[in-house]
Amino acid sequence: MTKLLDKINGYDDLQALTLEQLTQLAEELRHLITHTVSRTGGHLASNLGIVELTLAMHRAFDFRRDRLLWDVGHQCYAHKILTGRRDAFSQLRQENGLSGFPSPAESDTDVFSVGHAGTAIATALGLALGAQHNGTNEKIVALVGDASIVNGLSFEALNNIGLVKRQLLIVLNDNSMAIDVTQGAMAKFLSRVRLSHTYEDLRDTTNRMLEHLPLIGRRMEETLENVKKTLRMAISPSRLFESLNIPYFGPIDGHDTASMIELFKGLSHLNGPALLHVYTKKGKGFTPADDNPRKYHSTGPFEINGCEEKIADGERTFTDAFGDGLVELAERDDKVIAITAAMPDGTGLVKFRERFKSRYYDVGIAESVAVDMAAGLAKQGLKPFVCIYSTFLQRSFDQIFQEASLQNLPVVFCIDRSGVVGNDGPTHHGLWDIGYLRLLPNLTIAAPADEWEMRQALSLAASYKSPFAIRYPKEKTPAKPYAEHTSYQLGKSAVLQHGDSDVVLVGLGTVVGQAMRAAQTLTQEGISVTVVNARFAKPLDESLLDWLREGKTVFTLEDHSIACGFGSALMELAAQTAHQLNDDRLRDGIGKIIPIGAQDAYLPAASRTRQLEWMGLTSEKIVEAVKHCRTQHIRTM
Amino acid sequence: MTKLLDKINGYDDLQALTLEQLTQLAEELRHLITHTVSRTGGHLASNLGIVELTLAMHRAFDFRRDRLLWDVGHQCYAHKILTGRRDAFSQLRQENGLSGFPSPAESDTDVFSVGHAGTAIATALGLALGAQHNGTNEKIVALVGDASIVNGLSFEALNNIGLVKRQLLIVLNDNSMAIDVTQGAMAKFLSRVRLSHTYEDLRDTTNRMLEHLPLIGRRMEETLENVKKTLRMAISPSRLFESLNIPYFGPIDGHDTASMIELFKGLSHLNGPALLHVYTKKGKGFTPADDNPRKYHSTGPFEINGCEEKIADGERTFTDAFGDGLVELAERDDKVIAITAAMPDGTGLVKFRERFKSRYYDVGIAESVAVDMAAGLAKQGLKPFVCIYSTFLQRSFDQIFQEASLQNLPVVFCIDRSGVVGNDGPTHHGLWDIGYLRLLPNLTIAAPADEWEMRQALSLAASYKSPFAIRYPKEKTPAKPYAEHTSYQLGKSAVLQHGDSDVVLVGLGTVVGQAMRAAQTLTQEGISVTVVNARFAKPLDESLLDWLREGKTVFTLEDHSIACGFGSALMELAAQTAHQLNDDRLRDGIGKIIPIGAQDAYLPAASRTRQLEWMGLTSEKIVEAVKHCRTQHIRTM
Repeated sequence: MTKLLDKINGYDDLQALTLEQLTQLAEELRHLITHTVSRTGGHLASNLGIVELTLAMHRAFDFRRDRLLWDVGHQCYAHKILTGRRDAFSQLRQENGLSGFPSPAESDTDVFSVGHAGTAIATALGLALGAQHNGTNEKIVALVGDASIVNGLSFEALNNIGLVKRQLLIVLNDNSMAIDVTQGAMAKFLSRVRLSHTYEDLRDTTNRMLEHLPLIGRRMEETLENVKKTLRMAISPSRLFESLNIPYFGPIDGHDTASMIELFKGLSHLNGPALLHVYTKKGKGFTPADDNPRKYHSTGPFEINGCEEKIADGERTFTDAFGDGLVELAERDDKVIAITAAMPDGTGLVKFRERFKSRYYDVGIAESVAVDMAAGLAKQGLKPFVCIYSTFLQRSFDQIFQEASLQNLPVVFCIDRSGVVGNDGPTHHGLWDIGYLRLLPNLTIAAPADEWEMRQALSLAASYKSPFAIRYPKEKTPAKPYAEHTSYQLGKSAVLQHGDSDVVLVGLGTVVGQAMRAAQTLTQEGISVTVVNARFAKPLDESLLDWLREGKTVFTLEDHSIACGFGSALMELAAQTAHQLNDDRLRDGIGKIIPIGAQDAYLPAASRTRQLEWMGLTSEKIVEAVKHCRTQHIRTM
Repeated sequence: MTKLLDKINGYDDLQALTLEQLTQLAEELRHLITHTVSRTGGHLASNLGIVELTLAMHRAFDFRRDRLLWDVGHQCYAHKILTGRRDAFSQLRQENGLSGFPSPAESDTDVFSVGHAGTAIATALGLALGAQHNGTNEKIVALVGDASIVNGLSFEALNNIGLVKRQLLIVLNDNSMAIDVTQGAMAKFLSRVRLSHTYEDLRDTTNRMLEHLPLIGRRMEETLENVKKTLRMAISPSRLFESLNIPYFGPIDGHDTASMIELFKGLSHLNGPALLHVYTKKGKGFTPADDNPRKYHSTGPFEINGCEEKIADGERTFTDAFGDGLVELAERDDKVIAITAAMPDGTGLVKFRERFKSRYYDVGIAESVAVDMAAGLAKQGLKPFVCIYSTFLQRSFDQIFQEASLQNLPVVFCIDRSGVVGNDGPTHHGLWDIGYLRLLPNLTIAAPADEWEMRQALSLAASYKSPFAIRYPKEKTPAKPYAEHTSYQLGKSAVLQHGDSDVVLVGLGTVVGQAMRAAQTLTQEGISVTVVNARFAKPLDESLLDWLREGKTVFTLEDHSIACGFGSALMELAAQTAHQLNDDRLRDGIGKIIPIGAQDAYLPAASRTRQLEWMGLTSEKIVEAVKHCRTQHIRTM
């Protein structure tokens, strides 16, 4: 099934194929992608939809020197396979394997590691200006989806595209789907354009554009005007982009490889920025994904059985716990509003959307406005819950500062994918949210360790009068509590287990589970340690300082960077308190804090467990650290 | 000169005035604003330009219940004077006085404290949705400038404005100026619209719109269509906004108070979002500001003498030192590129722009794309210097993460207005940049203490292969070095003075000056302290740990929040190093770090010196802290 693919090992091999062979190659690519993703998990529907577009780009451009910029980038699988990574592709998203996103470390044909939206046009703008300065003539192509183009960063880049006085092609890959049903004016605009064209029209459009090709050898400006005249239609899709002074071409059929190749070649000779609008069908060629592209947007491993498929029933996750908890809260309190930035599935809001349609908002991939909109809702006395992955919430840092923290408004931030995220790798880790949030006055940061605490945190947040963040990882919830639950109070920790050694493990969030398992092992080895669930990263429980006053060795355990993390906050609190109170016992205790968390480096894709191990957060690693420390202690006594 | 103003004490008084009186009132407001700003400093040109527009809004709406959202907000002076703050206005931007920006603490008619761009439409969106949920019918008005509407956040909000099914008026205050000459497609689009209309046309436009008023009592939908038909012109300004499904009205003359009042009243009955495009003239009515609105955008105190004016020659600032340093660097190295986000004056790039026009880019108020564009330029082997105030760089946090830090690209961040900023107050402080930057791997953070160090940092940054941040405050440079300069090396501190007491003052950046003055005073009182210039917040100089090993009391002094700051970083480094090396002396020393910086609260507007005093960073406060600590020490020995 990969007869042709087996012969492709780069640019020249691809050029040698006939158009018929390209059609076969597309099928082979789909086959390989589907079968690999069924084993490794990953993004399926978008990768199946973009196969012909990828082939056409690789035939029209030479990305050994030309530059291709991906946006978000999870749809780059065919590109990876075609650029010398076919064999490695079996290790997609695995430790020491291929990244699920573009990665310059793997290939020079990947220009940027990406994973966040809206960067393709923005970085292409910089590359084009750089080429302008350098006087080089490589072609630059920014490939952006209809979901990413609504991001503010895309708009800022489009608004500045006039700085470019050389070739720069923006390809709008419009699969009319985004991550979920895209709301918003841009989506409606694109769908009005779409409704005015059948697929037959598209064929005609393409043909009319091709009549004006080959453009080489003719005066481009003339041809450009002719092409554009030919394309004027009842609802002119050029209106929006040409208001912004960007020549618009299309829409064209993104599964017609031959026509696309010719168009790309023609447009590559334009001496300025241009936008080509391409329609593709998400999930094309694999019936289950074709029928249900949302389900197959990002998937775990599944079984292929003809057109049947089976996704293993997942165990209960923190996302589930959050989603159900928010629905329950909303049933009791009609002021609760949920906001997502194009991720209702990922953030667990599907039930909420079904149950409370009028209290649910999806703003598209636009995290900044999600937060400001929430601030406006909070001003009106409503209780907005903004549900965004930790890494994407970075886009809202300035809005969290000005519209939530400075105004002291009760916006609740529900931060899924906090901590390491496993196979999505470094573009997606949520390792900095405690740092960038605890900088800001008025903010509370809770990190529930189990489902009960999630519900407690949600209830507390709903009744609280200031901004409130709840962080939780991509992880299963524990089947049973680690200890009997004690009253859940703002800024209060809970002691889960008292030990008689001088070691205290203070865990924040789900790492409390690893701490408890480590404690069990240590007990078996005759070391009885105390385990504390910190529950909050801000405000910190001042009673934690008592462990230091008692001279205990305090390990702070957090699924977060050590820099600016929870352990760091504890040291700051201890240092300031010791100075204010002139508390010598506390002062002497500060040196006994041992912070465990992520070091100052990027953790590559691997399983989440493996990444926790690298951070020293598995129970085995915690046991090792405690024993190492006690050995030192005994040796130096 | 304020005869009428003296009688205005709120909404009802304003309603009682005739149109002729409103014209006089506008003059009185201009007079009061100009004379106050000549004493206090502040934003002048934009406030003079918006007087009639403000009056018209206050006549058409009742902002005791209707909501007015400002964008950036520095043009709210007339609004403040009209809403019960006329007397307080003499204390504009002073300690315990009025904020230079909207402030809900001062008046319920100020909905949000703002200072950053792009938030008006975004928060208005939330307020409108909230009103929709609550079933209330207050009118909501978002006032946005032509400089702010190009911000990605504005676009994200416009893209989602279709969620609103009730009244929401966006007023585009187009003074064709922005903070500096706005580049970009939106600006060109607006200027094409502008060029197609003379001021006479505007009068006609307004009249034609007014023909369709009063709208009350007529069916709005019909009228809306009629109004829009009447307005179609050769270059239809509605193209862009109507592509986004936002009804567009205008452009109209923003100095014709009577017509504006009628238009606002009419449009306030629309049952959905709409945009009204208003032309105003920045600096109107004060000849020097009228002639040179850029100079009077934001000004220090000046003298009014008929039409003459004088701005006191400033002493040399860090902004000057940076600007000159970058020009020198660019003369030696033709790869140096400068990027600003609409702030060439504020960030000291005017000379650079004049000297190296082709290596200078202004992307408008769009900090996110500034960083991604820089990353693209860096990929092409150029050396981009991104010049953005600390507080506004928060908008780029996610781009600094993904496009600079993760790719490890040599983008240089030149961060002016780091630390407290004085009279601009809490929306503008740069108190968190060390925190949000040191979280990210691969980043270097330098903080020059004088002009020589600024040049050294710039040279080092230009030759460095990773992202590099340089932070410096709104402050004068010291007239002479604090000590003889020692070689400037990455991540190395410099000892400025050795003392024989157990106290070490480690200052980062310009607070080294205060530390040296404190040391002089302490010497006179018989306490001889060591003073160290840390120079870098990341990487930290490991030799700083030796002071701890020696048992010294180490004060870390930083114009930054204590949370996640430089002192916090030193504690993290010490804790990890002590654990790794099993270094008991270091462990015992950690408790002797005393971090001095901003506490977890917002510092109000006041002089910068006063704010430093609140943080404990004036030389007097440092002396106090040292003496307090030594008293404790002696008492407890």
